[in-house]
Amino acid sequence: MKILVTNDDGVNAPGLWKVAGALKDLGNVMVSAPDRDQSGIGTSMTLLDVVKAREVASPPIEGIRTFAIEGTPADCVILATEALSPSPFDIVVSGINEGSNLGLDMLTSGTVGAAFQGYFRGIHSVAVSVASLTNVQFEAAACAARSIVKTIAASDIDPPLFLNVNLPNSAPNLIKGADITRLGHRLYLENVERGSNGRRTHYWIKHNRLVNRAAAEDTDIWAVRNSRVAITPLNAFLEPGWHSPDLQPIADGVMGALNGGGG
Amino acid sequence: MKILVTNDDGVNAPGLWKVAGALKDLGNVMVSAPDRDQSGIGTSMTLLDVVKAREVASPPIEGIRTFAIEGTPADCVILATEALSPSPFDIVVSGINEGSNLGLDMLTSGTVGAAFQGYFRGIHSVAVSVASLTNVQFEAAACAARSIVKTIAASDIDPPLFLNVNLPNSAPNLIKGADITRLGHRLYLENVERGSNGRRTHYWIKHNRLVNRAAAEDTDIWAVRNSRVAITPLNAFLEPGWHSPDLQPIADGVMGALNGGGG
Amino acid sequence: MKILVTNDDGVNAPGLWKVAGALKDLGNVMVSAPDRDQSGIGTSMTLLDVVKAREVASPPIEGIRTFAIEGTPADCVILATEALSPSPFDIVVSGINEGSNLGLDMLTSGTVGAAFQGYFRGIHSVAVSVASLTNVQFEAAACAARSIVKTIAASDIDPPLFLNVNLPNSAPNLIKGADITRLGHRLYLENVERGSNGRRTHYWIKHNRLVNRAAAEDTDIWAVRNSRVAITPLNAFLEPGWHSPDLQPIADGVMGALNGGGG
Amino acid sequence: MKILVTNDDGVNAPGLWKVAGALKDLGNVMVSAPDRDQSGIGTSMTLLDVVKAREVASPPIEGIRTFAIEGTPADCVILATEALSPSPFDIVVSGINEGSNLGLDMLTSGTVGAAFQGYFRGIHSVAVSVASLTNVQFEAAACAARSIVKTIAASDIDPPLFLNVNLPNSAPNLIKGADITRLGHRLYLENVERGSNGRRTHYWIKHNRLVNRAAAEDTDIWAVRNSRVAITPLNAFLEPGWHSPDLQPIADGVMGALNGGGG
Repeated sequence: MKILVTNDDGVNAPGLWKVAGALKDLGNVMVSAPDRDQSGIGTSMTLLDVVKAREVASPPIEGIRTFAIEGTPADCVILATEALSPSPFDIVVSGINEGSNLGLDMLTSGTVGAAFQGYFRGIHSVAVSVASLTNVQFEAAACAARSIVKTIAASDIDPPLFLNVNLPNSAPNLIKGADITRLGHRLYLENVERGSNGRRTHYWIKHNRLVNRAAAEDTDIWAVRNSRVAITPLNAFLEPGWHSPDLQPIADGVMGALNGGGG
Repeated sequence: MKILVTNDDGVNAPGLWKVAGALKDLGNVMVSAPDRDQSGIGTSMTLLDVVKAREVASPPIEGIRTFAIEGTPADCVILATEALSPSPFDIVVSGINEGSNLGLDMLTSGTVGAAFQGYFRGIHSVAVSVASLTNVQFEAAACAARSIVKTIAASDIDPPLFLNVNLPNSAPNLIKGADITRLGHRLYLENVERGSNGRRTHYWIKHNRLVNRAAAEDTDIWAVRNSRVAITPLNAFLEPGWHSPDLQPIADGVMGALNGGGG
Repeated sequence: MKILVTNDDGVNAPGLWKVAGALKDLGNVMVSAPDRDQSGIGTSMTLLDVVKAREVASPPIEGIRTFAIEGTPADCVILATEALSPSPFDIVVSGINEGSNLGLDMLTSGTVGAAFQGYFRGIHSVAVSVASLTNVQFEAAACAARSIVKTIAASDIDPPLFLNVNLPNSAPNLIKGADITRLGHRLYLENVERGSNGRRTHYWIKHNRLVNRAAAEDTDIWAVRNSRVAITPLNAFLEPGWHSPDLQPIADGVMGALNGGGG
Repeated sequence: MKILVTNDDGVNAPGLWKVAGALKDLGNVMVSAPDRDQSGIGTSMTLLDVVKAREVASPPIEGIRTFAIEGTPADCVILATEALSPSPFDIVVSGINEGSNLGLDMLTSGTVGAAFQGYFRGIHSVAVSVASLTNVQFEAAACAARSIVKTIAASDIDPPLFLNVNLPNSAPNLIKGADITRLGHRLYLENVERGSNGRRTHYWIKHNRLVNRAAAEDTDIWAVRNSRVAITPLNAFLEPGWHSPDLQPIADGVMGALNGGGG
């Protein structure tokens, strides 16, 4: 199995290497990730400038071919699949992101923006995020990602899956369940702060205005708020009568792994 | 009625001013658009740097307050709504884009990325695109946008609408109908071309690989291929049982306007 | 005479159009300037990305062919001379900059960085700055620039001149003289301020730490501090025994023009 | 002795680590370098945006505190001296650059632009470059840099030195001498190539137009062309009667080190 790992926090972010390490023995892992933090970059791809790629000489995990891309997360997946890899990928894993990508906020997430590019190319794609910006605990997310990849690899789901996975910021044993969810509304909107360099006004956009809306029990927002893993399949874009394949084995696998039954 | 006009082709693009001109007498129009072409930027917003805004001293249409933003289309809407305008907007119109934003390709469109930010703020938002990159004919799209804004203003639709509108590149009288559609699949994927500055390889991402998939008759792709206006409400993200409000009056209004009955 | 006007404050800056207007009847003026403020960009040129140019449809002064460049001031001159203009230029004027470019500070000035590119191509090049960041008075600088261009055009100086011209922020009649000067030391160094977006530290570089060093009477810094125009020829790079051509006619011309004798 | 090492090829460039390694046992070495290749960026500093710094967790040479800066080479030195280091530096070494920075071309070099910022802060500053873009041999340059730092440390030169050092691309034993030189003229100018993304023209600036001018024997260009090390003190900016301190011990030290007498 050939696995592409990417993210939007950048090739030096710890979450990337946690998940790459967790997946390493499941197949041939390649990393193609932005050379800089790209939080908020969403689905952006670089059409109007050239994109540069640098192979990392000594990646944190030996043996994982690693590219640092001067571009967006979407660029990283496009370059990896179309130019940098001699063979096709079976799965794309994007993350582990520091900060949730819940509800419609996922649309402005580079983590999800990268995963879209795998999905659109017919590759199973999984975005993984932890719902905290500080003191992020990656262990449960790495464990969940590994379980999901294993379950997908052992099945023959077709067409490809897009899964947006969010975890509470907890140790594995404090997570209460894993739910197949749907997207909630926006969780945060943006505030704008004015600043000045003494001569001219500038603006800081802050993605920190909590939208106080109750979240229905079947949404990703509700699940994470209740210490549960939210596994959201992307669906409704596509076919009016679309039914997600049965994802319960994926959720069961995640809880099994978090409870120590993983492998 | 207060109208925000934005785009992703930049504040100097002709399509922006065609639609601003068409809407001018319907209310108070403000323009907040990127200072540079931002095609492909998708939903990106600038969270990690400051954003600068410059009020344009002599905009192409006198009397329209105009800001050129050193940022993304999403930034333009966020800044306009949160910082630049003293009063709230009733509708956001993004476009007229040169090039279609059909099917899931719309996710990487800055035109749509801007409209999302209006929609998420509870404002009716309409993205308008013409399906050609060259010799773009804006007249039908400007006419359609004007009709849609008028119809929305005359109704009391709630919650706010998100409409992704695509037109064939035709004169108004050659357009055969206006359909309420759903999103098709991806229409184009990307190729990657290698280049070099003599020392180092770089990559050009080209959004030009046509996906040869038949488009169902109720999709936006089919409509535009058949010389029809495609009006796609964004829906399925949100509520499982969501039903679009009746959009037939909007489609009828567009065809009436294109046939010369507009006002 | 063919004149290229550029700057680093950007194609929309008022100083650019003041000097373009002052030079307009002396020859064929073309403007090639950055589309964004580029203060501090120094000698930077874009070697690792493509540069884009947009011809401005309705420049503030009718009849002046104008390009907005997505690049640095140096890029603007390189593109104008090597690609955008069908015929060569006789003189490059860069400015009128808002803020002094005195002493060795000129090395980090985009205004001067642009002028270097003209000079290196064998074209007389003049950088013009006013020593204030607020309430900048452009009239004297525009008048001085016009006089200098006229004097150079009427002479046959060879090799080409590089002049770095700084004016006090005064009305023409309050300027006490025009001196041929040499560069002083650095006038300002930089402070660094820490900031944070809540998660991560960032830094603002501020070019505002006044270096408290006495300036010798023959320096540009002394001249401007004493309400005089400083005209500094670039020289000592080049030949050990280099002597500037006699620049007194240029200084005399400037004072004549400021005193109302200009034309 | 506290030594700051920087460059413009980026924190991952081999030349940076060759010189850092060569200097390591001479004192306390810190690295502050751009996270991306910044060739051509010249004296540019970032005044209009924030600058971000990331401490590199596992630098190629253990024990050297290393910062990757999302900014220019000048930014790297400004941040290191003003914000990142708790104590002042005694010397700044910028390089080893891949490609010469000879004659007035040095003005558009980020390698030199970084060194200027040390020099302006009263710190001895040395820019080191090798005159080849391919198959660059760093050994002689690293050896020369080490010798220069040792000689400066052992003397009490005041005011601080600025040295622009260029080497031929040779093994140490093929280098014929080390000369105290002055700057030659421009060695290369730029060509501009047109390109297109299918819709719009763009431009590539190439710094590859050789200026065919004879170089005088006392210039840096002549020295390197004749297989010699060129050591150019920056001088003539400053005082009309300025005399360089006696730099012969520096040149002698370099040749001694290249001949195997170094330590």
